[in-house]
Amino acid sequence: MAKELKNLTKRSEDYSKWYNELVVKADLAEQSAVRGCMVIKPYGYAIWEKMQRYLDDMFKATDVRNAYFPLLIPKSFLSREAEHVEGFAKECAVVTHHRLMNAPDGSGVVVDPEARLEEELIIRPTSETIIWNTYRNWINSYRDLPILCNQWCNVLRWEMRTRMFLRTAEFLWQEGHTAHATSEEAEARAIQMLDVYADFAEKYLAVPVVKGVKSANERFAGAINTYTIEAMMQDGKALQSGTSHFLGQNFAKAFDVTFVNKENKPEYVWATSWGVSTRLMGALIMTHSDDNGLVLPPHIAPIQVVIIPIYKNADQLAAISAHVDPIINRLRELGISVKYDDAENRRPGFKFADYELKGIPVRLAIGARDIEEGTVEIMRRDTLEKHSAPLEGIAEYVATLLEEIQQGIYNKALRLRESMTRPVDTWEEFKTEIEKGGFLLAHWDGTTETEEKIKEETKATIRCIPFDGDTTPGTCIYTGKPSARRVIFARNY
Amino acid sequence: MAKELKNLTKRSEDYSKWYNELVVKADLAEQSAVRGCMVIKPYGYAIWEKMQRYLDDMFKATDVRNAYFPLLIPKSFLSREAEHVEGFAKECAVVTHHRLMNAPDGSGVVVDPEARLEEELIIRPTSETIIWNTYRNWINSYRDLPILCNQWCNVLRWEMRTRMFLRTAEFLWQEGHTAHATSEEAEARAIQMLDVYADFAEKYLAVPVVKGVKSANERFAGAINTYTIEAMMQDGKALQSGTSHFLGQNFAKAFDVTFVNKENKPEYVWATSWGVSTRLMGALIMTHSDDNGLVLPPHIAPIQVVIIPIYKNADQLAAISAHVDPIINRLRELGISVKYDDAENRRPGFKFADYELKGIPVRLAIGARDIEEGTVEIMRRDTLEKHSAPLEGIAEYVATLLEEIQQGIYNKALRLRESMTRPVDTWEEFKTEIEKGGFLLAHWDGTTETEEKIKEETKATIRCIPFDGDTTPGTCIYTGKPSARRVIFARNY
Repeated sequence: MAKELKNLTKRSEDYSKWYNELVVKADLAEQSAVRGCMVIKPYGYAIWEKMQRYLDDMFKATDVRNAYFPLLIPKSFLSREAEHVEGFAKECAVVTHHRLMNAPDGSGVVVDPEARLEEELIIRPTSETIIWNTYRNWINSYRDLPILCNQWCNVLRWEMRTRMFLRTAEFLWQEGHTAHATSEEAEARAIQMLDVYADFAEKYLAVPVVKGVKSANERFAGAINTYTIEAMMQDGKALQSGTSHFLGQNFAKAFDVTFVNKENKPEYVWATSWGVSTRLMGALIMTHSDDNGLVLPPHIAPIQVVIIPIYKNADQLAAISAHVDPIINRLRELGISVKYDDAENRRPGFKFADYELKGIPVRLAIGARDIEEGTVEIMRRDTLEKHSAPLEGIAEYVATLLEEIQQGIYNKALRLRESMTRPVDTWEEFKTEIEKGGFLLAHWDGTTETEEKIKEETKATIRCIPFDGDTTPGTCIYTGKPSARRVIFARNY
Repeated sequence: MAKELKNLTKRSEDYSKWYNELVVKADLAEQSAVRGCMVIKPYGYAIWEKMQRYLDDMFKATDVRNAYFPLLIPKSFLSREAEHVEGFAKECAVVTHHRLMNAPDGSGVVVDPEARLEEELIIRPTSETIIWNTYRNWINSYRDLPILCNQWCNVLRWEMRTRMFLRTAEFLWQEGHTAHATSEEAEARAIQMLDVYADFAEKYLAVPVVKGVKSANERFAGAINTYTIEAMMQDGKALQSGTSHFLGQNFAKAFDVTFVNKENKPEYVWATSWGVSTRLMGALIMTHSDDNGLVLPPHIAPIQVVIIPIYKNADQLAAISAHVDPIINRLRELGISVKYDDAENRRPGFKFADYELKGIPVRLAIGARDIEEGTVEIMRRDTLEKHSAPLEGIAEYVATLLEEIQQGIYNKALRLRESMTRPVDTWEEFKTEIEKGGFLLAHWDGTTETEEKIKEETKATIRCIPFDGDTTPGTCIYTGKPSARRVIFARNY
């Protein structure tokens, strides 16, 4: 492992390669035998489980309830909403048969041609269609509204270029789907859930995000408005980390979902959908980690503290363990997850490197000498700084330190983003600055045509029209036409 | 709803119809637009979430960790294990294409013939193959063992006859897959997980189960031994509620997974797999519910107590609420989930019927008169008995009552099972008794041939060779040949 660690590519050499290697070396995930699909390993999954738990609690606090809808969607459902089918038909896995049979030549199994489905089914790329087809039967009157459902599930989009966590064919996510009696209520819910995502990203993942609305070009297929949280990775590229869509009445019309309103008149139902996925793992990894491996914010780390005894013989270990036991108990009382690694088959140096690679926020090392002196050696993973602290009251000290680390990691990411976010006012400047990475605040004339030309020439896209920030009008950097306000351009994952 | 309730078919009239109606009327699930796939509604899903949470904690207490493996499996993987492919090839959904296109005639979308996959993929019916293909890279030495992984996911088996929760094409489950250095350790793990399932079923679901081993005929496809927990439904039919398999080295051989043992020699790895699914919802519903609707054991009920104020005007409601608030707080302190339903648009009688249908274990009704007298009316759902209790100390009283109900529900189910479990000694007696339902303890000569003949003639199968019970040898009821011990025969779901 120590050798493995040395082999980690440096971020400055090849950021992309560093990321791919880190995902594997830190035991988070690996490629599977199926094109574009990954295996999420136990350590990676433990992080995802914590994300799920916190998000789920936050959803439920807003009265959302979980449900489960089918994996398979009749092909014809996709066609019902014109933009939706355009967005998803080109990348979906299609189930055409329901049986295999032994090959007549004994070479294994083949598809049984007799078992062809009458109508092909697609594996859900997202579930608006099957859910709105279901909601039709749940909604009659305004009294049945709102409906606030979420599901945690797998979805599949046949992407051509995949990268672990960032873009995989199959991925895990949650998708919320709400139904409302008024446009205002639906739009407010879309923004409410965006706020939940932003709070979660900042408080748990320590990933600062910009909240805003997407341009027409970047909208979800079938949405009226797509709200987004955008994070900045250490290489200055943007990562869209969560989206929340105001769907208007598009899906209600496609699936004929009406309700009788308070005035006793039939009306189409208003909708939102919103989702975050295992892509958040990518955001987490790329925002904080360094050339030594993963850096995990304490609030999301499955193991927050590791304690390593330094000993030469069984007596020393016993003496150390006797001192460590009450510390472990006290840490657990404080709600801190702690691992005591007294394994004899790995040397302390090896353990140090391994836990560094895995991003455990705080490491305590305790030797016979420390016991005598009543101290412990502490290393914080984010800064790699070591210092000594008294054993007395160490649990409370660590609890405070964890919060300090959480805040420190967030501040560091925020400072980087702020340092790499700047206004640009001319097309020449834009072309130069975009090469340096980061967020460019630029005027844009509001047309899809201009947006696409800028993308063609620079690979930069409009990440969002931010909720906050400068709203002074100006002129478009590309066309010189009037611009209502600056928007955020960046290259992105 | 009150009317709806009256329409519930009685168990004595048509048990099967009663079940199907109850699933829908209690808002647990409904059929979807996709053949054999159901929508699990929020109330049903809330029960499943509680099951997941408790089981997951129990798994983790035995050092199991969660991970995630791909949904799609290369077709050729199935063929690697001869029995496995026999077991699953005939009922699997096959993905053959990765793109749709607009129909040339504008009639919607059709499969793009250009986007045919080189090798077809199947949707996992279970994941032994993809997981053992992955484990090959994780295991080199005995030091890498054991591996103890579990995943919570969806699987799909193209069943021809489906029933909600009991047998659906897609279902949710967990599947544990462990890898071990010795046969003994693997077999012990398989039994350990069966014990976990049995404990969970009895302590949380209040479903008494018989633990045992399956006959060869009923084994999982690819297993050396399949262990099972079998429950008895109110109609006397058996429901297989969880299985744990000792897989020997079958999958290690199929996927070439070897390790270097302590003697420094290469050896194939030993395996187990074990799973429970949303089928447990069926077991839960069918074991306890009655003609008035669902009966939920308190330990698994999403809402354990509902409090309904009986009032004529806003002043009365305010007075009642003032008394109820501290009771709610105290109940929550005791870890009890409580709902206070003061909705004005539904009458108390309607609420009573609704919560009865939904199986809320305890209902408290409080009116102005109760406040004066310092009492509250309590109804327990399992017995439908009403009585009055003092408001003073009511939370503690309810906490005790919930435990009493939990135990009472379990005891009732156990008594039923015991009353419907009996030895039979002749073939004539067997044919008569099997029509009455229940578990028949009978001698069997140990051959698959005899087992199949008995099944043909009576639809009864061997549910298991129980761990406990009479082990006196005898003679087979069907062939008269020697029998090592009695086994359990029953008709089953």
